[in-house]
Amino acid sequence: MMNTVDLVADLGEGFGAYTMGDDEALLSVLTSANIACGFHAGDPRIMDATVRHCVERGVAVGAHPSFPDLVGFGRRAMDLTPDEVRTDTLYQIGALQAFAAAHGTRVRHVAPHGRLGNLVATRQDYAAAVADAVASLDRSLIVLAQDGALAEAARARGLRVGIVGIADRAYRDDGTLVPRSEPGAVIHDGGEIAARTVRMVTEGVVRGVGGRDIPVECDTVLLHGDTPGAIALAHRVREELLAAGVTIAPLTEVLDAKAGRAQAAERGVRHG
Amino acid sequence: MMNTVDLVADLGEGFGAYTMGDDEALLSVLTSANIACGFHAGDPRIMDATVRHCVERGVAVGAHPSFPDLVGFGRRAMDLTPDEVRTDTLYQIGALQAFAAAHGTRVRHVAPHGRLGNLVATRQDYAAAVADAVASLDRSLIVLAQDGALAEAARARGLRVGIVGIADRAYRDDGTLVPRSEPGAVIHDGGEIAARTVRMVTEGVVRGVGGRDIPVECDTVLLHGDTPGAIALAHRVREELLAAGVTIAPLTEVLDAKAGRAQAAERGVRHG
Amino acid sequence: MMNTVDLVADLGEGFGAYTMGDDEALLSVLTSANIACGFHAGDPRIMDATVRHCVERGVAVGAHPSFPDLVGFGRRAMDLTPDEVRTDTLYQIGALQAFAAAHGTRVRHVAPHGRLGNLVATRQDYAAAVADAVASLDRSLIVLAQDGALAEAARARGLRVGIVGIADRAYRDDGTLVPRSEPGAVIHDGGEIAARTVRMVTEGVVRGVGGRDIPVECDTVLLHGDTPGAIALAHRVREELLAAGVTIAPLTEVLDAKAGRAQAAERGVRHG
Amino acid sequence: MMNTVDLVADLGEGFGAYTMGDDEALLSVLTSANIACGFHAGDPRIMDATVRHCVERGVAVGAHPSFPDLVGFGRRAMDLTPDEVRTDTLYQIGALQAFAAAHGTRVRHVAPHGRLGNLVATRQDYAAAVADAVASLDRSLIVLAQDGALAEAARARGLRVGIVGIADRAYRDDGTLVPRSEPGAVIHDGGEIAARTVRMVTEGVVRGVGGRDIPVECDTVLLHGDTPGAIALAHRVREELLAAGVTIAPLTEVLDAKAGRAQAAERGVRHG
Repeated sequence: MMNTVDLVADLGEGFGAYTMGDDEALLSVLTSANIACGFHAGDPRIMDATVRHCVERGVAVGAHPSFPDLVGFGRRAMDLTPDEVRTDTLYQIGALQAFAAAHGTRVRHVAPHGRLGNLVATRQDYAAAVADAVASLDRSLIVLAQDGALAEAARARGLRVGIVGIADRAYRDDGTLVPRSEPGAVIHDGGEIAARTVRMVTEGVVRGVGGRDIPVECDTVLLHGDTPGAIALAHRVREELLAAGVTIAPLTEVLDAKAGRAQAAERGVRHG
Repeated sequence: MMNTVDLVADLGEGFGAYTMGDDEALLSVLTSANIACGFHAGDPRIMDATVRHCVERGVAVGAHPSFPDLVGFGRRAMDLTPDEVRTDTLYQIGALQAFAAAHGTRVRHVAPHGRLGNLVATRQDYAAAVADAVASLDRSLIVLAQDGALAEAARARGLRVGIVGIADRAYRDDGTLVPRSEPGAVIHDGGEIAARTVRMVTEGVVRGVGGRDIPVECDTVLLHGDTPGAIALAHRVREELLAAGVTIAPLTEVLDAKAGRAQAAERGVRHG
Repeated sequence: MMNTVDLVADLGEGFGAYTMGDDEALLSVLTSANIACGFHAGDPRIMDATVRHCVERGVAVGAHPSFPDLVGFGRRAMDLTPDEVRTDTLYQIGALQAFAAAHGTRVRHVAPHGRLGNLVATRQDYAAAVADAVASLDRSLIVLAQDGALAEAARARGLRVGIVGIADRAYRDDGTLVPRSEPGAVIHDGGEIAARTVRMVTEGVVRGVGGRDIPVECDTVLLHGDTPGAIALAHRVREELLAAGVTIAPLTEVLDAKAGRAQAAERGVRHG
Repeated sequence: MMNTVDLVADLGEGFGAYTMGDDEALLSVLTSANIACGFHAGDPRIMDATVRHCVERGVAVGAHPSFPDLVGFGRRAMDLTPDEVRTDTLYQIGALQAFAAAHGTRVRHVAPHGRLGNLVATRQDYAAAVADAVASLDRSLIVLAQDGALAEAARARGLRVGIVGIADRAYRDDGTLVPRSEPGAVIHDGGEIAARTVRMVTEGVVRGVGGRDIPVECDTVLLHGDTPGAIALAHRVREELLAAGVTIAPLTEVLDAKAGRAQAAERGVRHG
């Protein structure tokens, strides 16, 4: 299937005197970063330093907007109106764009954080709000999402979408994730996670809990950096992808390659 | 002297359920607006609506960054490092730029608010921090300031500067303002304020407390909208300027005209 | 039925430079105040001044805890855990108690604000969380609520409960309020509101939308102060209650009188 | 001199998902804790858990009020009015008192944090503001301070004062601390810090940078817990104090013992 994939993680999630995760260790693994924008984590100094580090390491910068809930780290649902979601999203992306410009780069993608990120997969109104914010701001921004309402809303507005592969979560046969509340929802074995990632990227499938292979898209793989084990796992995933012949590249290149393949396939059909 | 001037006021200074000033009434008087960016006032909904109203009325949008002090309305000094001032400024301008882009316009100028606005007139480190933020972000942004450290720092970086005329404050013979703590510092009579504004714009002078005319620059006149009397005064200032033959135009046009006059004068000197 | 009632309103709902409502005008009408504690509105200066004004006017002080959502004025649902509701409630009541102690009084009651106030009427877990907070802090605090889950949870912990009568809302025949989303939910006519209040207090009934009288408790009447019309209505309600022979007194006295009547009734039953 | 001393450290300085220091390790060393109250660190869950842990371990609870500056961890000066300092202090102590009451204890002392803590040593207006807040709220609260303006203001209001000994800082011959900006201001050697602490407590002196012994009061020793080395040092200080025959006890007992000695000394003078 695909032979190019992006590696992404959440960065810049400290606040003031507080740190979160090991950004430095992750930066050597990633091609893209979801950078906190101040609503669930991050502050102007951390955003500035994180963008600078990304530029120095050639990591593409993305915005990680959230519900406005610092004490809850954006993990608690808030009953915002769609217009509140839209305007909060605009505010946060804009703030990050300033640091991108100051460091000579651009924000490349937008990936909603935490509970907002969960809700936009199913709530059409919030998905539309985020997609509207992005479309009104900069149509070259890529929307990074799991398959679901936000991906659809973004495509409906002509925006590019990067689908996030979730290698450490179990899939049902219908392609949806097993909820975290159920046993077996999260996969902890590093070898299994790395192997599943490779199959997602090279074969476009993941083995479901029912034992069948489920087709999945995977333009980018979400890695974590909040424990020493997570950093080691991130390196392992990267190495096994490379060993399997996968090219690891920023999301823009992944999507360009994918569009090229789709065009070639279409020409093949028309000319065949 | 000059025959073109901009009229500016602080807008969008509500927060959530709270309102501040009569933005609607001011919009019919202004050519530019300093829009709060969420640190002393303003929230994403108010920023969105204020930018939209400015676009509808042809009023140029400017950022009004502040110390991060909502409960103090940005009026209290905070001992920030210059890097904190620089990054807080970037964050706030960027957030406003997103709403400008969403409404098909651009942020045209930056005018520090409240205590930060006072301090950048004299503190070289804060002045440099704000000017650095602007220069790194967008070199077409105009820095709006009183004569002082910020204006100098901005010019030193090649940025355009718009000097704010303060018609309702008394001037000392050395061109500095009489501090608010001294009697007679603030002029309350509407007729006097309007007349002083006209002299500032048409003659480039203001009568100082010592009785002599003090030379002042005035690219834009700062109006207020927080009382019914303030709105009436804003209209009066506008009308007396028009009656005196002054063209009221956005800051960009004021500075373009000024640059044209300076070039013409220079040509006159060289060719004369 | 009852001939003593408390009059209460939300006070101290400004923030920093912002004002909300006409507290001064309301203070001459009330016997109790729900004072914002900083999470949806209010700040330490406003809390201090509001408690002081209440003490000067003989108005009993109550805490008005909220979800932590200043920009949303506490009107947006947040998916907090019960322990988050319990601890946020403790924090806010404690903060107000400090100002009460500083002004020589005590916090007398607790009335959850906004969306939290709505949710505790039906969510057993949030009702238990608020009641647990109050019971662990000061068992002499009165819980002010509409009939519902919070009132039950408070009684189950041996706390005193004051039931709030809602004179400007339509009631269904089952005693629940017509939701605000339905036509006719809110009653706007001042004469009708005053008359309904008098019937609630003197007869213990309100005319439901189906045309039948619904039994309601009413230990305190919730008044508003956010419009000039609201202040006039508050005065009218007070005057019509007095004209109907009702005694207007702080909630503690209302509940003491009620307890006395209940004891007398019980003695009458036992001895009769 | 003295043979009883309190051991205190700052606890509960995490926020939301963020942690700071190793409170668990410190709790086995301390007799008192300065607990963050939400303005520079701490949130209602952390305050609740920290108070509970203190009660379980017999550690006395104190309030650690700060300037309102979460992103700056209370380390940045803010130009507040004295009334803002007073009301912010009341708010924070009150919030902590609620958790103390919920866990069956009382707040025993107040120790201003960070930059506010520095400023109250010299600024009379801020010192008076904090002392007024404490005196108006609960006259049994002990004010914990270095020698300076706050200690004087508290004594002038009849409040008990606990003087904090600073064993890891160099002293000038006039008894003031060498500023952090100068070389040698901070002592890093654990053995030296422990030995200086023992002399402070048992002899009431510390060796100054000029080589002479400087008289110092020391009712409580400030320990730290933010590094593994700090925890080990805290244990060492405790053990060397015990080995020197010092009784380690909560601040109330330390001050009671001191008052007893003073009374005995006075009787000795009068009767001698």
